[in-house]
Amino acid sequence: MEINLISDTVTKPSAAMLEAMLKAEVGDDVFKEDPTVNALEEEMAAFFGMEAALFFPSGTMANQTAIKLHTQPGDQLICDKYAHVFNYEGGGVSFNSGVSCRLIDGHRGMMTAEQVEAAINPPDFYHSPLTTLVCIENTTNKGGGACWDVAELKKIKQVCDAHGLAYHLDGARLWNALAATGEDPKTFGALFDTISVCFSKGMGCPVGSVLVGAKAHMEKAIRIRKIFGGGMRQAGYLAAAARYALKNNLGRLEQDHIKAKELGECLSKNPVIRKVEPIETNIVIFELDTTQISEADFMAQLNKAGIKFIGMGQGKLRMVTHMDYTDVMHERVLEVLKAV
Amino acid sequence: MEINLISDTVTKPSAAMLEAMLKAEVGDDVFKEDPTVNALEEEMAAFFGMEAALFFPSGTMANQTAIKLHTQPGDQLICDKYAHVFNYEGGGVSFNSGVSCRLIDGHRGMMTAEQVEAAINPPDFYHSPLTTLVCIENTTNKGGGACWDVAELKKIKQVCDAHGLAYHLDGARLWNALAATGEDPKTFGALFDTISVCFSKGMGCPVGSVLVGAKAHMEKAIRIRKIFGGGMRQAGYLAAAARYALKNNLGRLEQDHIKAKELGECLSKNPVIRKVEPIETNIVIFELDTTQISEADFMAQLNKAGIKFIGMGQGKLRMVTHMDYTDVMHERVLEVLKAV
Amino acid sequence: MEINLISDTVTKPSAAMLEAMLKAEVGDDVFKEDPTVNALEEEMAAFFGMEAALFFPSGTMANQTAIKLHTQPGDQLICDKYAHVFNYEGGGVSFNSGVSCRLIDGHRGMMTAEQVEAAINPPDFYHSPLTTLVCIENTTNKGGGACWDVAELKKIKQVCDAHGLAYHLDGARLWNALAATGEDPKTFGALFDTISVCFSKGMGCPVGSVLVGAKAHMEKAIRIRKIFGGGMRQAGYLAAAARYALKNNLGRLEQDHIKAKELGECLSKNPVIRKVEPIETNIVIFELDTTQISEADFMAQLNKAGIKFIGMGQGKLRMVTHMDYTDVMHERVLEVLKAV
Amino acid sequence: MEINLISDTVTKPSAAMLEAMLKAEVGDDVFKEDPTVNALEEEMAAFFGMEAALFFPSGTMANQTAIKLHTQPGDQLICDKYAHVFNYEGGGVSFNSGVSCRLIDGHRGMMTAEQVEAAINPPDFYHSPLTTLVCIENTTNKGGGACWDVAELKKIKQVCDAHGLAYHLDGARLWNALAATGEDPKTFGALFDTISVCFSKGMGCPVGSVLVGAKAHMEKAIRIRKIFGGGMRQAGYLAAAARYALKNNLGRLEQDHIKAKELGECLSKNPVIRKVEPIETNIVIFELDTTQISEADFMAQLNKAGIKFIGMGQGKLRMVTHMDYTDVMHERVLEVLKAV
Repeated sequence: MEINLISDTVTKPSAAMLEAMLKAEVGDDVFKEDPTVNALEEEMAAFFGMEAALFFPSGTMANQTAIKLHTQPGDQLICDKYAHVFNYEGGGVSFNSGVSCRLIDGHRGMMTAEQVEAAINPPDFYHSPLTTLVCIENTTNKGGGACWDVAELKKIKQVCDAHGLAYHLDGARLWNALAATGEDPKTFGALFDTISVCFSKGMGCPVGSVLVGAKAHMEKAIRIRKIFGGGMRQAGYLAAAARYALKNNLGRLEQDHIKAKELGECLSKNPVIRKVEPIETNIVIFELDTTQISEADFMAQLNKAGIKFIGMGQGKLRMVTHMDYTDVMHERVLEVLKAV
Repeated sequence: MEINLISDTVTKPSAAMLEAMLKAEVGDDVFKEDPTVNALEEEMAAFFGMEAALFFPSGTMANQTAIKLHTQPGDQLICDKYAHVFNYEGGGVSFNSGVSCRLIDGHRGMMTAEQVEAAINPPDFYHSPLTTLVCIENTTNKGGGACWDVAELKKIKQVCDAHGLAYHLDGARLWNALAATGEDPKTFGALFDTISVCFSKGMGCPVGSVLVGAKAHMEKAIRIRKIFGGGMRQAGYLAAAARYALKNNLGRLEQDHIKAKELGECLSKNPVIRKVEPIETNIVIFELDTTQISEADFMAQLNKAGIKFIGMGQGKLRMVTHMDYTDVMHERVLEVLKAV
Repeated sequence: MEINLISDTVTKPSAAMLEAMLKAEVGDDVFKEDPTVNALEEEMAAFFGMEAALFFPSGTMANQTAIKLHTQPGDQLICDKYAHVFNYEGGGVSFNSGVSCRLIDGHRGMMTAEQVEAAINPPDFYHSPLTTLVCIENTTNKGGGACWDVAELKKIKQVCDAHGLAYHLDGARLWNALAATGEDPKTFGALFDTISVCFSKGMGCPVGSVLVGAKAHMEKAIRIRKIFGGGMRQAGYLAAAARYALKNNLGRLEQDHIKAKELGECLSKNPVIRKVEPIETNIVIFELDTTQISEADFMAQLNKAGIKFIGMGQGKLRMVTHMDYTDVMHERVLEVLKAV
Repeated sequence: MEINLISDTVTKPSAAMLEAMLKAEVGDDVFKEDPTVNALEEEMAAFFGMEAALFFPSGTMANQTAIKLHTQPGDQLICDKYAHVFNYEGGGVSFNSGVSCRLIDGHRGMMTAEQVEAAINPPDFYHSPLTTLVCIENTTNKGGGACWDVAELKKIKQVCDAHGLAYHLDGARLWNALAATGEDPKTFGALFDTISVCFSKGMGCPVGSVLVGAKAHMEKAIRIRKIFGGGMRQAGYLAAAARYALKNNLGRLEQDHIKAKELGECLSKNPVIRKVEPIETNIVIFELDTTQISEADFMAQLNKAGIKFIGMGQGKLRMVTHMDYTDVMHERVLEVLKAV
């Protein structure tokens, strides 16, 4: 039995999801004539109480499009030092938008309104880049699946308003935050100019992300998507999976969170583990006591038992629970961990 | 009965293709672990006798990636004035690569080696952009589906070699050229540095293009694809359709070509048609005698009969045949055209 | 005696101009504290009846800044096929702004309002770049120093207004147009969003160009100039030369035009010359009858007599008159030309 | 008496320097025919023992050109968090080159080889930008004019070599480091791929910077300079000032350093000053004890006495000594500081 805890992106569609894909009514989405894509976009706009939405082949493209929408080349955006847009989108912020990142030394991928305000360059001092955008990531990936406090997000919104900054939410795993906190998605829709969500992580779809925002923004977004090469034809097969997930898989994320917490507890009890970060959703980040066991040895023992996961650098290891991580697998992992 | 002759991009997968998609073995292609995508990439490399290939969500992204691979910002590429990369990729050549286009006034989208050579800027004259790339489109879309003479392509290759230029083939409809001319795909593989092909046109797939070239180029291409946001997870469902098409649909393109020629003959005989361009593949471009009928009237008559198609500007109208344009539809269109 | 007819950029400051430079009051222009630069900027704004101006190290940078001001990456600008911004700014339109050029096949570097209108891409058709800017060059360099008809410029302005396009004038040699036509500079100020003028051509200054436009545009322009690295410290020495030229050299351009016309007449009479283009200002473009003399032979004969000039490709030769081309030199050239 | 300690960029040429400028032999540098510019470029190449050099209107443009030379869009460079290229070049790294900055939390603007090595992204992990360049600033501006230890620079060079990274030195104030440490400039020439130096800071010239490096790099650099609009015509007037400074002003920098140290001692003794950073060259950075005096009060007292200087944010104040800061002014400032 191979057990993959590398990422929640590795899930494969269930039989029922595949059935929904197969039956999808499709059209040429480049002409906006794919009824399933159109339906998904309407549903997503309604979900967040925003005007419009646009389907994308990846969360990276949805984020990169949003950043381009809100900036001119030379501008600077503010984000946490752990932000996916800075670390894991191939340098796209600078490549695609000519924009630089001002990184905040936040807590678990989350920054305070005060930190954001202090990081804004004076707009009249033309030697420094013009600050025009704040990017939030919720849940934080590198921050260990932490959920933002909505009160802090509101304070940051006030800073954005006071300084004329746009406000983007990278919600690749916003589903997990919604499941964990019970927040109303419309709360996020009311705060942000644009929100990206990804369907091929915890939601279990093969491919697809959606960007949500004002109609005027989405009309520009379709141009940018075209330029990146994100215009797909009969994309309805992919959108059908997303619609299925929206209806059927959002509710089950809590199960992933429970398993993650159980992994965390198990790890905490093991003396070779030096530290386990707080677990709020489906991501478990922990550090070894390397005086007792090397990373290589620890990895080797788990790999031998069929358990795959990855390090994040600087001695941090990560496990991610997901739909395809079954109860049986979970029992097995707990057992193996105890024996390390 | 709605008859869509707007483009060959509007086709929907057949039941058998859907079945192949449903049964696809998939994995996370971002980690290069999707076996179906991997198999398709290997097949495409072998098809052209090149080293490697990479799957993309669109032909635009495959072309844009190739252009970025071969250029530095500030460079200039040479292409025909009708080229898709200049006209229909949203200005991506300049947005994504910072590159300008030197347009050739060719014949039906095709230029001569002499024209190419004359368009190269002197490399020491630093006031002009540095010419580094020649882009070919085969068949030509705006040029009416014309097929390039391989002898001319070889002459252009010699010009490229003499001047150190890269050589890219936008083969969105190369399938049609192969079907019409019987050329060996490896002939193209031997000439070009990179070739893009699209599966969601005549081949009838919902989504997907492939870029083919040297291993070193494809290793860089995956970075660029990531930056554009073209990395998809379980993309095997889309790749499965492409593999199915490669096996089953390449052979049937000739039927589309026959229908296109019959449409052309029928149009030629109609006195309200001033000119029909030569038809080699599945694209029919014609002009009305506007002293006899206006574009609006002509369109209205056909639309009323359920026939949809589009103008290309400057008085040119276009019909494109494809897999979903059935014999029954064809009879109906010929009938309606005669009656106009 | 060496006689340089290569370009009007080769002039050296007169003793009086150097004196003016030496005596200039200067400061740190990066802090906007150089009084001479500030005075020049105010004078130039007043000259065109516009709000503000900004000093630049080159006309290329002034043009590139204007293009960036008026566009977003991916946009398309419309200009004549001979335009300096497309041909001789190193591909900067695409490098600096991510913008592509739609080239018009105009007459001597000048296009009609009809041609401009026909070249605008439909703004809703997101496959094509968004047209946002029209660039004019007056006088036309590659077009042989031709002066635009202000009536046509006004018609193009109407097209720009109707379609929401910005309108930029590359006035590198606008001085010559003003001298030749007697037009009021404020006429141009009223038509265009931005105007660049160059002081190191006919005006005889060593270095310096100015961009003129609305205050809001110039506030953004200083950021772009900074990014390109065009912020200079005690630039007042260069600005002093420009102020001197504005007062003393504008009036003498007519002498260059007379000499150019005399060169043209002399060339017309010579049977080895096939064609001389109409001469309106200080640029003489002509073609040899290559059945009688080769370009190399013709060049060699003039070079031997100390006369330097250059070809423009495609059999066109160019001579440019300027401040340092004296009466004595002129007599000598006429003499040599007669003897060829 | 106004005393300007804002920056060493505010100096004005001495009478002797102006005399040298006035007598300069000039030509059209765009055609590489300005003998004074050519001579300066040769002298600077020889100074560092490198192959070639290129004159620029600003240090920002020299740095931006170097960064573009060494990178492709999407790449990442490593520099200290205080680096001028990140903080004070208008976001040009991303605008001009599409490159992002990985900032190191160094000491006074200087990082260690270990920190550099740890900041290199794994080249096979295509989600992260590709690291291709390390930028050093010597002396450090925001770091208080600190001089790098050459031994550490050599260690970083080894890291660059081991990982295939280019190595650029922003030597805007390298003159001061040379004066303070007595290092041979050729030591720097042997270490770095490119070095930029600025003549309009401590060297007292009005305008001008030079980039030094391999011949192949400079041949590309002239293209990039053209694209930015940095090609100037009779730039010899500016180059003449630089040549004068190279001969006459390098030796006097030590005087600025002595004055800076005396300012530092004086500040240290004043109880309202909480901290003075170590002073190695001509930059004095200090912090107030704000329980005793506010920044506004302190500034007001000095301004009233005719002394101008600026804050750097976060409670840090900066004074910069330079050629136009005379002994008389110095006595006055010391007097005023004692009385605060």
